Amino acid sequence: MRMKHTKKQMLFLLGGLLALSLSACDTTKKDTQTATETTTSTPAESSSPQIPAEDKALWTQATAIFKALPSEPESPAANPTTPEKIILGKMLYHEPRLSKSGAFSCNSCHNLASYGVDNRPTSIGHGFQTGVRNSPTVLNADYQLSQFWDGRAADLEEQAEGPILNPVEMGMPDEDTVIKRLASIPEYQEAFTKAFPDNSPDSEGPVTYKNMAKAIATFERTLITPAPFDKYLTGDTAALSTEEKAGLQQFIAQGCTACHSGQNIGGALYQKFGLINAYEHQQDTGRFEATGEEKDKYFFKVPTLRNIAKTYPYFHDGKVWDLSEAVKIMSKTQMGKDLSDQETQEIISFLNTLTGELPIEARTLPTLPASQADTPRPSL
Amino acid sequence: MRMKHTKKQMLFLLGGLLALSLSACDTTKKDTQTATETTTSTPAESSSPQIPAEDKALWTQATAIFKALPSEPESPAANPTTPEKIILGKMLYHEPRLSKSGAFSCNSCHNLASYGVDNRPTSIGHGFQTGVRNSPTVLNADYQLSQFWDGRAADLEEQAEGPILNPVEMGMPDEDTVIKRLASIPEYQEAFTKAFPDNSPDSEGPVTYKNMAKAIATFERTLITPAPFDKYLTGDTAALSTEEKAGLQQFIAQGCTACHSGQNIGGALYQKFGLINAYEHQQDTGRFEATGEEKDKYFFKVPTLRNIAKTYPYFHDGKVWDLSEAVKIMSKTQMGKDLSDQETQEIISFLNTLTGELPIEARTLPTLPASQADTPRPSL
Repeated sequence: MRMKHTKKQMLFLLGGLLALSLSACDTTKKDTQTATETTTSTPAESSSPQIPAEDKALWTQATAIFKALPSEPESPAANPTTPEKIILGKMLYHEPRLSKSGAFSCNSCHNLASYGVDNRPTSIGHGFQTGVRNSPTVLNADYQLSQFWDGRAADLEEQAEGPILNPVEMGMPDEDTVIKRLASIPEYQEAFTKAFPDNSPDSEGPVTYKNMAKAIATFERTLITPAPFDKYLTGDTAALSTEEKAGLQQFIAQGCTACHSGQNIGGALYQKFGLINAYEHQQDTGRFEATGEEKDKYFFKVPTLRNIAKTYPYFHDGKVWDLSEAVKIMSKTQMGKDLSDQETQEIISFLNTLTGELPIEARTLPTLPASQADTPRPSL
Repeated sequence: MRMKHTKKQMLFLLGGLLALSLSACDTTKKDTQTATETTTSTPAESSSPQIPAEDKALWTQATAIFKALPSEPESPAANPTTPEKIILGKMLYHEPRLSKSGAFSCNSCHNLASYGVDNRPTSIGHGFQTGVRNSPTVLNADYQLSQFWDGRAADLEEQAEGPILNPVEMGMPDEDTVIKRLASIPEYQEAFTKAFPDNSPDSEGPVTYKNMAKAIATFERTLITPAPFDKYLTGDTAALSTEEKAGLQQFIAQGCTACHSGQNIGGALYQKFGLINAYEHQQDTGRFEATGEEKDKYFFKVPTLRNIAKTYPYFHDGKVWDLSEAVKIMSKTQMGKDLSDQETQEIISFLNTLTGELPIEARTLPTLPASQADTPRPSL
């Protein structure tokens, strides 16, 4: 529930709101203003691919709105990506000792066997309590303006610190207990030292809560799932079928791209859920709970649509299981439109092209080191 | 809680009891009767390896008592091992939809990132309830006379049917609900059809509870962890250090091999916990609960010692966390001996050579298929 906001976040927020007031509210404009508004964008690949004449118009439009995923993870200056951090981060991601009971790891709710989610409305945590919001996917999560549904964490590092100490999630009492568990294990001492070799001898040592979060974030940056749509964007227009291209055209024409654009087909701005028509299940005030600002009431971070066909149930409350129902609700609440079944199905055929594949290294379980005599034990 | 026992089980049981009455009760005999009693055994490899003269005596003794793990999984006639079954079985092993809540899979309690256990005294299941016995490791579990601490399942197939329907474990109400979940998913229909192609068209189809258990068992048969001790047994005597060889000698000389022998250094017979001196935490009557026979009171299946350094906490109740304490308790309760700290440490140095490595394919997560509109949803 931290209230901290970076300048970057605020700029994104303002930019997002501006973009939305310009486009998303205009429910009559069915054509492709977004493409013309963003003529400074360039295709993802610098060498111009040869695009068949019949695909040229749609592809040009699409590459102005969307961007393919990179093949390598980002490496932020504040936490550069290294192989040693990825190794440590993967161990920690699968580490049930980060939970009070020793039964929950990051992977329990963000399961890498099921597209980084648990496919539950809300996740089960310590004491079989359930959270209030649906666990969003960890896949491609780096390519968002912020983390959590309400954007209360600036980045993956900040996000990783949260669930471990949340009483209804992993339930650890405090950072010290977490660090006592990890620091008591020689293999973790070694892995942290390799991942964070620059710690001065006077410092508290490499095994810190911040470094733990940094390593988890670094591993999470490798969770990139290139999909058929990325192939299309980088010039292989045959990667999408005729029907899928029609879906892409529909997705753009209906104005879904007002919110769902960029590298993550979402994740780049906040938007009010119920912009035109109220969402019937609405109880959660969203970003307002994080900022306390009236203007943020019912605002949520626009989720990524990557792997959306696999990351049901939908929305912040996980109340909607069916993707076509979710698409229709979005269209109705955000744009005041009733999509036909055919329009909906076309859009879904495009959304299916966003299902990608994790690199095999990301799906390979680590081998976790054994606890020692002084390692604090799990408890209920 | 099934009472079914195969002829094979009964023969093992009788054989085990006979062997024990001959050897384990004899607390004064410190030397190596086991080796001379089993002169018909042959070393694991048929081509005789060149053993250095100084290692010859111990190695000859060891290869008569123990057997190296095979490199390939078994393929029982009743459920032959096939690549298709392994693929399906791995999906099912990691499938949280086999639990009522959709939060627990086989891997939750038998975590392949932590040597096939959850390192908790007893596991957490549906409703945050805990079981009464420690979750034994799934690694090398095929090489046992039976499954569960009380041996109530004849084999891996029978074992796999249990926890899914156990109200304090995965909590599914009945087999039908399990099968409705799986059968509603086209990718599972396809994977079951590939794994079980011989189902007649008149049968209930390939997606059955029995076939589910067969596939899980087949995947589990691949969970083999060859260790330094296997290298030693197959003739590379340098795979064990001088200290570890002294530990092996100690392990044999103390008589631990009366119960912990064979391919799994255990798992081949039932024994009373508290044979000579009572175990102080004893409450569970063990195999008596499965058979109702007085002679089975406080009898448990002797657990494997493979990966024992990593599969704490120890014993059927998971009450002992420290391996040296566990070794001393065993010696005291089963053989009436108080081991010295040095003897205990030597034995532990041998036990550490039983820590092996899972093949990487076994540690690679599957990608689970999506639920459909008619897939029964998770519930609390």
